[in-house]
Amino acid sequence: MFKAKIYIILKPSVLDPQGNAVMHALHSLGHEEVADVRVSKYIEVMFNISDEKIVSEKVELICDKVLANPNTETYNYELEPVSDAEANKN
Amino acid sequence: MFKAKIYIILKPSVLDPQGNAVMHALHSLGHEEVADVRVSKYIEVMFNISDEKIVSEKVELICDKVLANPNTETYNYELEPVSDAEANKN
Repeated sequence: MFKAKIYIILKPSVLDPQGNAVMHALHSLGHEEVADVRVSKYIEVMFNISDEKIVSEKVELICDKVLANPNTETYNYELEPVSDAEANKN
Repeated sequence: MFKAKIYIILKPSVLDPQGNAVMHALHSLGHEEVADVRVSKYIEVMFNISDEKIVSEKVELICDKVLANPNTETYNYELEPVSDAEANKN
């Protein structure tokens, strides 16, 4: 099994209203030294596949077609092998 | 300046309806080998502070008080020094 750790991040040119809201909330709480906040998604996907190359292709397909909006977001990911014992623990 | 990369993750014992919805969507699109999906938040916060220890304390304070729900979520973070030139580029 593999665990894919997928980061889906807004492109730098895209406004992030959620991040701005968090930044203003932090400023109003006195954390004036916060210069910028960007809120993104972090998705962990477990795959019942043992071949890293196939997992990698699957992750890119899923990100391109389902998880990320190619107009506004980019993604990157890391793969981590997981033993069946560890997978059952969660 | 420092960039804090903050991961806010649901505790393993907490149900993740958003993750389940994504998993079912992936299954219905034919990706049957997806065994589990957990959707979490990834937040980048820029700090106008040059002392890493103070940034670290700030991040923990902000996560405990604002960003994470201590009942259902845990967090971890990494700090990355950022030059002023890089910060202005974004």
